[in-house]
Amino acid sequence: MKMKQKLEVTSSRPYSIFLGVGLEDLGAYLEKELGGIEHLLIVTHPRVKEHYLERLINGFSAFQCDVLVVPPGEEEKSLERLSKLTSEAVACGADRHSVVLALGGGVIGDLAGFFASVYMRGIRFVQIPTTLLAQVDSSIGGKTAVNHPSGKNLLGAFYPPLVVWTDFSTLETLPWEEVLNGLAETVKHAVLGDAALFSFLETNQQKIIDRIPEIYQELTSRSLQVKVRVVMEDEKEKGQRMLLNLGHSFGHALETEAAYQGISHGKGVSIGMIAATYLAEARGLITSAEVKRILDLVKGLGLPIQIQGKDPEILLHLMEADKKNQKGQKVLILPDKIGHALVVRDACDEEILQAWNKVIIK
Amino acid sequence: MKMKQKLEVTSSRPYSIFLGVGLEDLGAYLEKELGGIEHLLIVTHPRVKEHYLERLINGFSAFQCDVLVVPPGEEEKSLERLSKLTSEAVACGADRHSVVLALGGGVIGDLAGFFASVYMRGIRFVQIPTTLLAQVDSSIGGKTAVNHPSGKNLLGAFYPPLVVWTDFSTLETLPWEEVLNGLAETVKHAVLGDAALFSFLETNQQKIIDRIPEIYQELTSRSLQVKVRVVMEDEKEKGQRMLLNLGHSFGHALETEAAYQGISHGKGVSIGMIAATYLAEARGLITSAEVKRILDLVKGLGLPIQIQGKDPEILLHLMEADKKNQKGQKVLILPDKIGHALVVRDACDEEILQAWNKVIIK
Repeated sequence: MKMKQKLEVTSSRPYSIFLGVGLEDLGAYLEKELGGIEHLLIVTHPRVKEHYLERLINGFSAFQCDVLVVPPGEEEKSLERLSKLTSEAVACGADRHSVVLALGGGVIGDLAGFFASVYMRGIRFVQIPTTLLAQVDSSIGGKTAVNHPSGKNLLGAFYPPLVVWTDFSTLETLPWEEVLNGLAETVKHAVLGDAALFSFLETNQQKIIDRIPEIYQELTSRSLQVKVRVVMEDEKEKGQRMLLNLGHSFGHALETEAAYQGISHGKGVSIGMIAATYLAEARGLITSAEVKRILDLVKGLGLPIQIQGKDPEILLHLMEADKKNQKGQKVLILPDKIGHALVVRDACDEEILQAWNKVIIK
Repeated sequence: MKMKQKLEVTSSRPYSIFLGVGLEDLGAYLEKELGGIEHLLIVTHPRVKEHYLERLINGFSAFQCDVLVVPPGEEEKSLERLSKLTSEAVACGADRHSVVLALGGGVIGDLAGFFASVYMRGIRFVQIPTTLLAQVDSSIGGKTAVNHPSGKNLLGAFYPPLVVWTDFSTLETLPWEEVLNGLAETVKHAVLGDAALFSFLETNQQKIIDRIPEIYQELTSRSLQVKVRVVMEDEKEKGQRMLLNLGHSFGHALETEAAYQGISHGKGVSIGMIAATYLAEARGLITSAEVKRILDLVKGLGLPIQIQGKDPEILLHLMEADKKNQKGQKVLILPDKIGHALVVRDACDEEILQAWNKVIIK
């Protein structure tokens, strides 16, 4: 069963999100809708290339096509890889009229999107998310970036794609660990903005673990609608959009501490969201009953709520590089009930340390 | 005598260009007009720092100020330097609300502007051009970039500044070689878009060589008005703006061949403009009398019209990386009379080689 859906994002440059479409149909869409495209530059991941490139390229007989393969790993979201992509793009004759296709997960989307935003001062690009994380979250909203030794996603651009093209069949070959990364963001979207989605996840917990395709289409669609709604209200992240960073201030610190190696993004967000929830509870913002529901869902899906052997002081220090911070003051996102969150600007280091201590196993 | 002027650029993000203002007055302007700025990050050049930083900073008592010094040289317009600026900015606490001030010439403006466009996905910046080249050309139009081994200005962004703040007194300490870089762009602007400016330059040739300040204010103002007019018609360089690249398709090839070391940008543009003019003449687009006027003015100002010992075939090949090119076809800008130029898309390699041969001394 394939159910097609189309969502329109009205940002400074409007674009469409297609859900439940087939990889092999993108070529026809580009030909019909966008015209004047001759050269496609596909940026992808070795495993994704092996499973899905052929189906995508089958639809591209009208175009000249080049494929740039990026090795696996978050460490490829770097200026060094950007530089290599640039050399490769020039070598295969990419010009201002070429279109970059990001075929892969969040790393590919962020990297290829940022590359497209700066190559010759900006060429067009298309997101083709193949992981749950990319489908529910990172392919939406126009944020692109690479990491830097001084911070995650520190260099980037707000650069909306032409179109987001989501074929759910790419989830079939996705390792469970990567499914969890997407589920962490889905729970986050439910906690910060959609109580009904939260209940849906609670009710369908076992079906999610059993990887029932219909449940995934539903949760993806509902999850990204939370994001689209927030992004449309605040494209450049000056206000409400910061809510999407629930769990990320704490989570990025965990990822940075582990140099993006020891901990997945999903686990970082999961533990980070729990830390934020504990901090909200300590402030009396959220009831203990709701905290318990959040803990139960996160655990029930197999996501972590604690981590072993970290130093809270080091993690606190790493939170200083967070892009949301202002005048040296840490800006946090805290849930005040299931389905709603707040921007908090007055958290002191002591309460942040207390929250860290609740998620760290000594 | 100081004559203040203000020009408004109406791009996707409108901004003002101030001419004939004082460095020491920028602080008061920022406080009054922009509010909510607490942290300034000044990116500058060692020589400029020595001469002008104190005057600028004297006006900044209301702000926290950090200064990042970039070593001299076009080779600093690189991803490596961008990465270093990022580390330094994080170390001094720059956040999304910080403002980057580019105090220097074209290298500083392009580099600091691109840095501002990508740091935390874009923070505000101000252009404070201190060279004639930056004042008449590179600080205007919102183009920022770094170079890459595969091509000049290959990675960048269209990212307009908040404001351009031009104090002509900074020209007093500018070496004549660098004045020539600016004069080359001024002649280019006259040839492609302002016959009256061309006559003004012919008439005042000696005063320009004698560095009479009033003449410089006049030529700067008129020269950048050509650029502002063209840019406002075509911010993202899809059509008419390409005319500003007169001389640059040839010139960039010369600069790339010399690895940005052996030849100044001004000399590259000068010889490149002459090559384009010869090509236009060979096509019967421009009269020999007008070609002679162009040659006489360029020579009269002390700019080169020829270069020694280059291989035309190598230069032709280097022109293939030009960002204007489309579908492998070289796109050239050719003058068809003084004060007017055309985009030409059908130049064949043979006539380009002939043009190269006319400017190369064997």
